[in-house]
Amino acid sequence: MQNPTAAILIIGNEVLSGRTQDTNINFIAKRLSTIGICLKEVRVIPDLEAMIINSAQSLANTYDYLFTTGGIGATHDDITAASIAKAFNRDLIIDKTAEQILRDYYQERINETRLRMARVPERAQLISNPVSGAPGFQVENVFCLAGVPKVMQAMFDTLIPKLRTGQPYYSKTVKSSVFENDIAQDLEGIQNQFQQVDIGSYPSFLPGGRFGVSLVVRGTDQNIITQAVNAICAMITHRGHTLEIEESK
Amino acid sequence: MQNPTAAILIIGNEVLSGRTQDTNINFIAKRLSTIGICLKEVRVIPDLEAMIINSAQSLANTYDYLFTTGGIGATHDDITAASIAKAFNRDLIIDKTAEQILRDYYQERINETRLRMARVPERAQLISNPVSGAPGFQVENVFCLAGVPKVMQAMFDTLIPKLRTGQPYYSKTVKSSVFENDIAQDLEGIQNQFQQVDIGSYPSFLPGGRFGVSLVVRGTDQNIITQAVNAICAMITHRGHTLEIEESK
Repeated sequence: MQNPTAAILIIGNEVLSGRTQDTNINFIAKRLSTIGICLKEVRVIPDLEAMIINSAQSLANTYDYLFTTGGIGATHDDITAASIAKAFNRDLIIDKTAEQILRDYYQERINETRLRMARVPERAQLISNPVSGAPGFQVENVFCLAGVPKVMQAMFDTLIPKLRTGQPYYSKTVKSSVFENDIAQDLEGIQNQFQQVDIGSYPSFLPGGRFGVSLVVRGTDQNIITQAVNAICAMITHRGHTLEIEESK
Repeated sequence: MQNPTAAILIIGNEVLSGRTQDTNINFIAKRLSTIGICLKEVRVIPDLEAMIINSAQSLANTYDYLFTTGGIGATHDDITAASIAKAFNRDLIIDKTAEQILRDYYQERINETRLRMARVPERAQLISNPVSGAPGFQVENVFCLAGVPKVMQAMFDTLIPKLRTGQPYYSKTVKSSVFENDIAQDLEGIQNQFQQVDIGSYPSFLPGGRFGVSLVVRGTDQNIITQAVNAICAMITHRGHTLEIEESK
């Protein structure tokens, strides 16, 4: 059975303006890899209703899961809940459970503005927020999470049990001082021989004008990964170059 | 006159697999901000021909400029040149200038594989690569750059003179310990009053359970930015909170 697929939609001007170095993509990408969901596409868009609606509809239709981050707070630039409601032709309602969560969290500091964070699309399921109270929400295959990394991460970990997971991805990386271009043809042969893994070739430019390459073999079958890595190592060693192998789940 | 618009297309499995923390988006976003080009969308996609073609066509049609990164090397996973050629219905040809650049750069180490990096879409213009020889290329409003950050950055800086630039963006950030939610309504009023700037509100969760907020005012007119910042500062001070202002180009 094929692994489920997913996309991420990063909503917010701060990444596009260059103010913020995004880290949410990498966090979610790593988690999905571990639980065997194949991340196929990421988009970063501004806080603009039409773009949120179009992107969410397109990605939710194309992939098994869509994770959005950002725009679920209580300020004027937080328009994710209203936009996702429109994307799915649902009303934006006050969720009673979310309201109670916010009242419990803020106690006497609750106010009308904070209660805006209880507005979710009709029939949405809440995603709990262990860090700062205000919940995220799920509509069909779309999971809307906070943009602040610490909050997003905590929310993501609570929703994992809701996901259909697949075969976890593993990867091994062969690092060598060989020139990427010198082995390109052999590498293509190895890729063709082991089509169940993805072999990526990433050159690096080291201090002092030295070159190096990282050859990443990734897939769900550890035996085939090992076979492909062995073939790569034999090819590099045959050329008289040294190498080292890094393993990662 | 409106500032030109742009999109970025990050091509490569390494960001989607979680192996690589992308930094290319942030670098290009900052540069575009400085030269007055409005970055409207970013997509990250795998090395898959159909996705490269569809995404490139869609983004190139929607925005003034499209910058792609990744997939222009000489290994089997480098399919950007061939895919962009198809996206624009052009043949993939050996560019004589690119070939000479590669021969000069590699000298006696030139080989068939390296010469693959001279393949670009017909009538493409080359983008010079001061770091590692092999050039990028431009087809209509699409600029195809390397994926390795150091190389991409050097290429990007050489192509800036080819771009129609606009009014540079400036921003000022007001940092305060005020609760974001407590000022949400006032902030919306200030945003409505100063519609030529974007006001973003970014809560932070500090060690020890403390909260803070960064209010970012961004636009092209420094006078209006200052007026909006003054209004924000007056509103926060009125509430008895302290603040500090950070300026950035």
